[in-house]
Formats: sequence, structure tokens, C-alpha cells
Amino acid sequence: MAVQRPKGTQDHLPDGSPKLSRDLQASAFLHVQDVARRVLERSGAQFIATPLFEEAELVRRGVGGSTDIVRKEMFTVYYFGDHGGYVLRPEGTAGIVRAYLQNGLRQLPAPLKLWTHGPMFRAENVQKGRLRQFHQVDYEVLGSAEPLVDAEAIWLMWEVVRELGLRGAQVRLGSIGDPADRERYNSYLRALFGPHVARLSDDSQERLTRNPMRILDSKSEGDQALIRELGVRPMLDFLGEEARAHFEAVQAYLRGWGVPFELDPAIVRGLDYYRRTAWELHHTQVGAKSALGGGGRYDGLAAQLGGPEVPGIGWAFGIERLLLALEAEGAAFPEASGPLLFVAALDEENVALAASVALGVRSSARAEFAYRALRPGNIFREAERRRARFAALLGSEEVAGGTLTLKDLRTGEQRTVLLGELQRVLHDLQREPQAQGQ
Amino acid sequence: MAVQRPKGTQDHLPDGSPKLSRDLQASAFLHVQDVARRVLERSGAQFIATPLFEEAELVRRGVGGSTDIVRKEMFTVYYFGDHGGYVLRPEGTAGIVRAYLQNGLRQLPAPLKLWTHGPMFRAENVQKGRLRQFHQVDYEVLGSAEPLVDAEAIWLMWEVVRELGLRGAQVRLGSIGDPADRERYNSYLRALFGPHVARLSDDSQERLTRNPMRILDSKSEGDQALIRELGVRPMLDFLGEEARAHFEAVQAYLRGWGVPFELDPAIVRGLDYYRRTAWELHHTQVGAKSALGGGGRYDGLAAQLGGPEVPGIGWAFGIERLLLALEAEGAAFPEASGPLLFVAALDEENVALAASVALGVRSSARAEFAYRALRPGNIFREAERRRARFAALLGSEEVAGGTLTLKDLRTGEQRTVLLGELQRVLHDLQREPQAQGQ
Repeated sequence: MAVQRPKGTQDHLPDGSPKLSRDLQASAFLHVQDVARRVLERSGAQFIATPLFEEAELVRRGVGGSTDIVRKEMFTVYYFGDHGGYVLRPEGTAGIVRAYLQNGLRQLPAPLKLWTHGPMFRAENVQKGRLRQFHQVDYEVLGSAEPLVDAEAIWLMWEVVRELGLRGAQVRLGSIGDPADRERYNSYLRALFGPHVARLSDDSQERLTRNPMRILDSKSEGDQALIRELGVRPMLDFLGEEARAHFEAVQAYLRGWGVPFELDPAIVRGLDYYRRTAWELHHTQVGAKSALGGGGRYDGLAAQLGGPEVPGIGWAFGIERLLLALEAEGAAFPEASGPLLFVAALDEENVALAASVALGVRSSARAEFAYRALRPGNIFREAERRRARFAALLGSEEVAGGTLTLKDLRTGEQRTVLLGELQRVLHDLQREPQAQGQ
Repeated sequence: MAVQRPKGTQDHLPDGSPKLSRDLQASAFLHVQDVARRVLERSGAQFIATPLFEEAELVRRGVGGSTDIVRKEMFTVYYFGDHGGYVLRPEGTAGIVRAYLQNGLRQLPAPLKLWTHGPMFRAENVQKGRLRQFHQVDYEVLGSAEPLVDAEAIWLMWEVVRELGLRGAQVRLGSIGDPADRERYNSYLRALFGPHVARLSDDSQERLTRNPMRILDSKSEGDQALIRELGVRPMLDFLGEEARAHFEAVQAYLRGWGVPFELDPAIVRGLDYYRRTAWELHHTQVGAKSALGGGGRYDGLAAQLGGPEVPGIGWAFGIERLLLALEAEGAAFPEASGPLLFVAALDEENVALAASVALGVRSSARAEFAYRALRPGNIFREAERRRARFAALLGSEEVAGGTLTLKDLRTGEQRTVLLGELQRVLHDLQREPQAQGQ
């Protein structure tokens, strides 16, 4: 048997491939990247690309050593010489903040708006259909703590989704406050859960000591039952004055711009470097618990990575998940267009000339040619199969006269065109209003 | 100290970053991808993307178990659960042919023209300035053995290079014939080197048994001295009739299309699945021995990977190497343009309005805004620093009248514009012929 693709990975394939779904379609993939690029570049964001593998220490600090991602889902990278300290990146933020610090990007005017797209790697459970290599679009802003930066980030995420034609997406917005607010909330949770510690799962008993907020994220049904029973108050109730003012400012901007969102008091973030604004992008048709993406402010991250304090905020969404949501909605994608011209010769000795004619057209448009001689009927059939707008036929008679036969595949009209005039004729014919009823 | 980037990797950074060279400039990187995409899409090539890691077995078969790449330069990938059979891909062809076979792409009309770009990984010697993660543009055609397909492939590689404005590149073309031709050549080499075996390096003594052609590629100075001394005849002298006719047809197409090339009788390929056409793209200013890229026909590869016989040909070039060559030539890149509009408010209470004005313009153009109130002089300075075409200023007087002050930064002209008319005014002003002498 031929060698197979690694489990949990996908090939993104050409249009027309057998069994092609949206999340496997390379042209849909490029379309998402193109739309994201247009929206983000129009905001002044600049592209950045960081290595696909990083020091494991970076990911431990950036994602958190106690998270499942770091404990169970890391791909470790070794090379001849036995360095075992690298991992494939599970997300994009840590590498971008590392690059910002290492390359002196603090010298650039703030806020610095950056974006990227690319593969991320997590050794997830493939039985549940999770991907081990998936792809994200990622936007990060460094150097400003203004709530207007947060609101613009959410607006941009929403704008990408809207431009892609996704209708069922939903922004769920929360705030996790400042470190002192979280400390108050954790004290409240310790006091609340303390008398019931025996009913908590093992993991959550440990969390009760280290970081009680993470109990709220527990996947244990027993924990969730206890949470409901105790009527746990949300983090939002514990925001300090400054965090509350920031959160209200973000909401006011979003309402002003007509970005729909729901408050979600349940949004928590387990890591200390997160601050204030946090949100998720959900879609009902890809699973209630499953976000398409999310974002948040991480003013403590740069210091966590060994740098100075630099406020930051960012978001990412999964391209494959977004494509599945678009497919579930039956969203229309721009149809792949065919070439402007398909050229073929009737005789082997004119195949080279047919190729040259196509090459000449490529300076301004897509043009394809037949690699062997074809019969006239086959030329037009082949041109139609490729969805070409025009077909050009080179027979010995045409070649003798320095011409070709050009057929407009929309109108069926044929004409003889001098080889030297082909580009002008194609140009003029494209501008002509189409015949009625075609 | 902050966590650092892994050795042998690069960050691709925004314009204006400190110490920015071409090969680190993210916008230059995107420019190469954009040009390659335009040229390749106009030929009818479709995008494909395969995983960044593959089964080690695929790479062993696709690149060759005896090559330095596989023996010394592979990055092995492990995950929790201890699967050690994956490697980061060192090149793109094996994965694409694997994807072609696994996804039934043989059902698509042949030849199928595919392209991709992305990172490749080799644990190279970083002391010599080699990259461990570098990036390639890659073009592959499957399903045809016609020499016209080979010629078009070379034309396309040349066209990308030409469109990028690189002048000093050179195509060196050769042919390594068919398997029977290589067998004749290897017999000749065995007979020639046999009496001198003791003078060969240890590696080349081993090659003399397994694959004598690879002696010609030896990096040992002693081996190269012996090669010169013996006056070794080139592979090209041993081409059979069919391989020679194929090679001559390829050359005739290239000459007809005006693609300059030099015959290079020294081009050899160590692997059995290569057939006939092989070429390299060189540039004098990035090191005499160092190619920017190369390509070749590999009709035996699909079978080598466990599939049926499928003729194929492809090429790749290194994006970083190409950027270094462009920089060495002092080639001009399209200058990064600034936003059409920069909007700022004079008072904090109008910052939100300024942001909304910019957001409205983004449906058709790039527009940026200030996240805080600025003084009038700072607004214009800030707009100029961003290379904006227009600056818009919102003071309390303007806001009271539902207007803004618009300054054309090319002419210095200022006018008052109704908020609702901004997009139309910007549209009209951009179409106006520019004032003389500006």
C-alpha cells in the first residue's frame, strides 16, 4: 500500500477532486486567507511570520504548563544532535510576542497591529475528529491598553466573518478583570467551594488550591452539578472600577458600530497574564461547546516571556472550522473561474505554436493549451470542460495564413483572427456587452 | 533573558522593523508569493497544501535513504503517545505526490498542474548561515510525460523570476536519461574508476558499488581531482534515442519562447526515480555552488511511494534565497503604500467618532485612526509618517456641524466635508489628475 497521510492531518485539494468538502478545498482555504488579508490590511495591520517550532519553554510560559495543550498535546521536535527542547507551535500568540521582543519591534510606533495565518499543531484525539494540524488566521495588537483597541480587534474579527458571508456566528463577550479582581474572585470561590471540597473531582481539588477559577471550566459532570447547586456568582460581578470602565467602553464602541454580541459571564481564562477583555466566536452548527475562535487581552504575557511589560490583545480563528460552518450554512463561495482562452492545434506540428499563443496571453490573463493535437470537436469540448471563455483552434490552413479560429463559448460565434491581433481582439470582446438571452 | 527563537530560523517582520533585510521582510515575502501565484494561476495551476509533517517512510522513499538530508538533517516529530515515525518535511514533492495518490487525483484530467508554497525543514549547519526552516514555492505537474510539459514548467519558473525583476538568474539544463541509459553510464563509470578505487574517498568507494553517478557529486577534493584527471564523459553522452529526442524537444520549445538556458552536462541526480529533464536555477551573487532552486522529471516517484506509475515533473525555489539575490541586485520592490485616510479627533469625546469614520472607509480602502485625541499639528505629522494620502481632523466645531476637515497631503489643500459625503469626496479626489509639479 502507498504511504498514507499522518492521522489527524488533511490535504487541501484542487477543485474537482473526489469527495471534496469545504474544509479540504484549497481554493476555499485561499479565499478565507484572501478575505482576512484584505480586511486586516485595510486596518493597517502588517503581516508577520514566525517559525513553526519554538523552544518548549516559550510554549510552557505562553500557553501554561498546567494546560492540557502543554501536558498532553505537544509535538516535540528532535534533530540529529539530539536537541529535544523544541515543540511545534500549538497557537500563534506566544511566537509573535517573542518575535516582537526579540526583534526590537517596540521601537515601531504603537499600537503595532500584526496579522498572520498558518498551521498550528496539537496532538489531539483523532477519534473525535479533531485535527492535529489545523490552520488559523491570527491578529495581534501590541503596545496599547486602550479599550478602543479591544473594540477594533473584535470589529475586525467580526468583519472577516461577515465578509466571508457567515451569518450564524455569534460573539460572546466577557471580562476577566485585573489581577487584584481575580484574586478577590478566587478568594470568594475558595470560601464557597471549601466546605464541599470532597465533592470536587481530583483535578478540581488541586485547582481549588492553585487557581479556583479553573474549576468553572471543569469537564467533570460532578463539578458542574456542584457549580449549579452553589449558584456561583460570575467573575463579571467582581470587576474592579477600572476593569469595569474598560469593559463598558468596549461594549459602547461595539454597540456604536453595530457589532452584535452577547455578554457571557462564564468566560474565564486560566492564565495569570490575561487581563480584562475576553471573547469567543461561536457558531451553532459546528457544536454548541465548540468555538470557531476567540480572543483576549494579555497585558501580562510579554513579561511572562522574560520581556518588559507590553500591553497586548489578539484573536485567532480556525480556518477549517470556519469553512465547516460556511458549508453547514450552505454559503456561496466565489465560483472558480476558467481560463480566458484555451488553445489547441489540429496537427502535432502546430502544438508548439498553440502553446506559444497561450503563453503570450498569460501576460494579462489565464490561458491554457493542449499538450497534444486534438480534433476540432474535442477542442471545443475540452474548452467547455475547463470553463474557458474562448477557444482557439490552429489548423494547417489557419497557420498558413498566420491566423487562428476563435470561438466565443458564450455566444457560439466563430471568427478568424490574425495571430498578432489576438490580445487586442480578446480585450475588445471581453468589453462587449453580452448578447441578449445568453 | 527573554526566550529566543530556535537556531537556524527567522522571523519575517513588518516594514520599518530595525535591521530589516529583504529575506526578513514579511511584505517582500508576500510579494514573492503573490507574483508566483499570479504567474502559476494564469497557467491553470491549482493550489494544494499538504501536512508539514509526514511519515518518515515517505521522506525516505521520496528523498532517498542514503542522502545527507535523510541521514543527518531530518527533524523527527514525537507526541504524547510516543509515535516517533513522523518527520518535518524537507521538501514538497513527496507530500504532493502522496496526496495525489491518496486522494484519487488521478481521476482529474491530466496533466494536473499543482502549486504550493510553505515552510520546509532541514537540520542544517547553522554555523554556515544555513536555515533550518526555509520557505519554497513549488510547482508540480502529474500525469504527462510530454516534453512540452517540461518546457512549460521551466518557462513558468523563469517567468516568476522575471516578473520579480531578478536579472542575474540562469537556467542550467541537463538530462539524466532513462534508467537503461543510466545503467550504461554507471557501467562506464565503474570501469573508469575501478582501477583507481584506492584514491577515492570512503563515501565514493561505497558509491562505486551502489550508484557510481553520485561520485560526480562528491564534495571531496581528492575525488574531484580524480574526476578531472580521468576526463570523465558526461551523462549527456549516454542518452538513449528516446531520452535524447525528449531533451532536444524541450530545448527547441525553450529557444522558441526565448527562455535563456545553458546546457549543464554535470547535472546528475542520485535517485532512481528521476528521469530525463533536470535543471537548476543559479545566481552568481548568492554563491557559485548555491542554486536558488531546481527541478526535474520524476516519472518513477509515484511507484516508489507505493502507487501506480504516474509521470511527473516539478520545481521549487527558496523564497529567502531569491530575496537575497534580489537584494544583492538592488532590485526595486513595490513600495509599501500608506492608508488612503488617517482620521483623528482633537478631543477625547470625539475619538469614537473618528474611529467610526475610518471604519466606514474600510469597505473600499485602507483607513487608520488615532486611538487617543491629538493636537492638529500632530494629526498631520502622524498622517505623513504613515504615508497617508489624506488626513481627516475632527474638532468640536466640525462635529457640531456634522463635518470633518480633510487635508490632501499631496497638495496641502484643506476642505470641509460632510461626514455623509466623505466616501464620495475621497473617491472623486483620487480620480482627479494630480496638480502640476506635485
